[in-house]
Amino acid sequence: MQVNGQYFRTIWVYNAKSIFADVQVIDQRFLPHRFEVETLSTYKEMVTAISDMHVRGSGLIGVAGAFGVYLTIREAFTTGKNDEFIKRATDELMNTRPTAVNLKWGIEQMISKVMHLPANADRVRLALTSSQHIANLDAESCKRIGLNGLPIIEQIAVRKRGYTVNILTHCNAGWLAFTDYGSALSPIYLAHRKGIRVHVWVDETRPRNQGAALTAWELLNEGVPHTLIADNTGGHLMQNGMIDLVIVGADRIAVNGDFANKIGTYLKALAAFDNQIPFYVAAPTSTIDFNLYRGIGIPIEQRSANEVRYVSGLYNNKVVDVLICPRETPAINYAFDVTPARLVTGIITEKGIVNALSDEIAKLGGS
Amino acid sequence: MQVNGQYFRTIWVYNAKSIFADVQVIDQRFLPHRFEVETLSTYKEMVTAISDMHVRGSGLIGVAGAFGVYLTIREAFTTGKNDEFIKRATDELMNTRPTAVNLKWGIEQMISKVMHLPANADRVRLALTSSQHIANLDAESCKRIGLNGLPIIEQIAVRKRGYTVNILTHCNAGWLAFTDYGSALSPIYLAHRKGIRVHVWVDETRPRNQGAALTAWELLNEGVPHTLIADNTGGHLMQNGMIDLVIVGADRIAVNGDFANKIGTYLKALAAFDNQIPFYVAAPTSTIDFNLYRGIGIPIEQRSANEVRYVSGLYNNKVVDVLICPRETPAINYAFDVTPARLVTGIITEKGIVNALSDEIAKLGGS
Repeated sequence: MQVNGQYFRTIWVYNAKSIFADVQVIDQRFLPHRFEVETLSTYKEMVTAISDMHVRGSGLIGVAGAFGVYLTIREAFTTGKNDEFIKRATDELMNTRPTAVNLKWGIEQMISKVMHLPANADRVRLALTSSQHIANLDAESCKRIGLNGLPIIEQIAVRKRGYTVNILTHCNAGWLAFTDYGSALSPIYLAHRKGIRVHVWVDETRPRNQGAALTAWELLNEGVPHTLIADNTGGHLMQNGMIDLVIVGADRIAVNGDFANKIGTYLKALAAFDNQIPFYVAAPTSTIDFNLYRGIGIPIEQRSANEVRYVSGLYNNKVVDVLICPRETPAINYAFDVTPARLVTGIITEKGIVNALSDEIAKLGGS
Repeated sequence: MQVNGQYFRTIWVYNAKSIFADVQVIDQRFLPHRFEVETLSTYKEMVTAISDMHVRGSGLIGVAGAFGVYLTIREAFTTGKNDEFIKRATDELMNTRPTAVNLKWGIEQMISKVMHLPANADRVRLALTSSQHIANLDAESCKRIGLNGLPIIEQIAVRKRGYTVNILTHCNAGWLAFTDYGSALSPIYLAHRKGIRVHVWVDETRPRNQGAALTAWELLNEGVPHTLIADNTGGHLMQNGMIDLVIVGADRIAVNGDFANKIGTYLKALAAFDNQIPFYVAAPTSTIDFNLYRGIGIPIEQRSANEVRYVSGLYNNKVVDVLICPRETPAINYAFDVTPARLVTGIITEKGIVNALSDEIAKLGGS
């Protein structure tokens, strides 16, 4: 997608012709105030990039996990480490973030694709092309999610006779959360490019403000009209007819249709249900955990309390953290919540839209 | 209540023996990082104090309105201005904040009590004692709200066999929002003093963070165990059995039981209902608008978009505002939302607990 008019993905291979190529990512910690590219050369650097959220978003951490396996295999080859090293390194990558299942998916895809080869340059080469393939698949899936979700927006635009379609989204499920296009924002980008009048309500998304920092920045770069709101505001807008549609992403979807997404998603789903507003989840099928029947089994990541006690922002042209409570105040930071399937209108995947309450999800397991 | 072990109210008369006494308030803009007292000598200063939120909270702005009328009448007397000046000044006070009905109530109480006297020193004296009386009434009402709400907490403590009672509150409906004691926090303070084990989940309450800045500070000063959470978190805690009770304040209650409170209250009420957790509103009867049948008629204040775009906090021992979104990002800032009566378990008033869905609210109109 666009960054100041230039095309970017969130993750790519630098000097892709060599099997010793490094991986580069947009370091999202500094957005929207500073655009920085980070070069990652070792699996340890990828572990840090994922756990400290230089890269984040369910799809992107899956792809980053895949590239992490490539860096591991490259390192094993160049330093003569054995497969035990690869096993430990991929476990470490796997444990960086517990909630999004895509991370596990990306790493397991890589292992099944390359580990049958002996520890030679061919394995490194296959690891490189496989991780690039996974990145391309992720981008392609997101584009298809956009195409599959577009008719939902088009139908509302027709019903509103061309008046602006107002869409609420929570957190960032845009292209920054994937390789490209995004999940929840993908249908919105396609609708906007088609000339449909859309306007996005952007939830700030405390504590890490991915809405204010990332979604607003994406929409600005793509020229999509949008308004930032406090997370508390969505219910009031819905009660007053100011939201036509909610689309959010997902970090893990259970077979029964329950799904984990950024903390606060459940509250918006309740409000949409109470006001009879369609509430869609947009996610590639790599987000579905076919081993998990109900949402209650999804592990919920707990992050540092300081992410709640401090807010990061720009002051005097510098990004600083400000303390918003008494120094002694304890805080707790759950990063995700689980929304029950009964509140979901439909799940938009690259394979089509499925009913969250039906047995259609289980059928998506085939490839 | 306590500030570093010393007793304070939020508003008082300085040198109360003179009819030319000034009014003093805790300037809440600097909490929790700095404790500052502001002296107000003119009605204009009170207008600024209310509209710029040096003082805030439904009860306190009612009492501040009353003291504003006193300052108006004093100024009219000392500078020889006529009753037309008083009319204009009280209108100005009335228009500082649109949502909380207590402001109107406080000002109208004063006008009906003192304006029958001619414009002499006696009128100034009566205005002074009347405003002090309104402040005392507010504190007394809050204390009674505490006594009336206490059994709710006691019963949960019994049911939990002495395990900690976990209570969620939104925004600040503590003593800082009134003259003393508070509404939602009043039963909690009484329970804590009685030795009941309570723990308060404090909603940060974006965009102005009254939970993080004021409620956390109050609870800290009173020694009540508490944990700060992002506004997005309450639903997850309720789903996981970590909240036994929700108590919030109100800025205006309609006769049918719908009520306006800080933006985001409606989302928590939906979650409490979905998880069968008791959800109480605590407010003095001065918060009831007996002229309003349904909540839909409550005017919702819109404040500056910069309260959403910036967050205020402590950096290098200085309170600064940091920008959390791109400079070009537009924002909107609704300060309140309306929660329908169907989601309310009961309303705790100084006259007792009433059922929000019954005709009991209308009966509270008599004095």
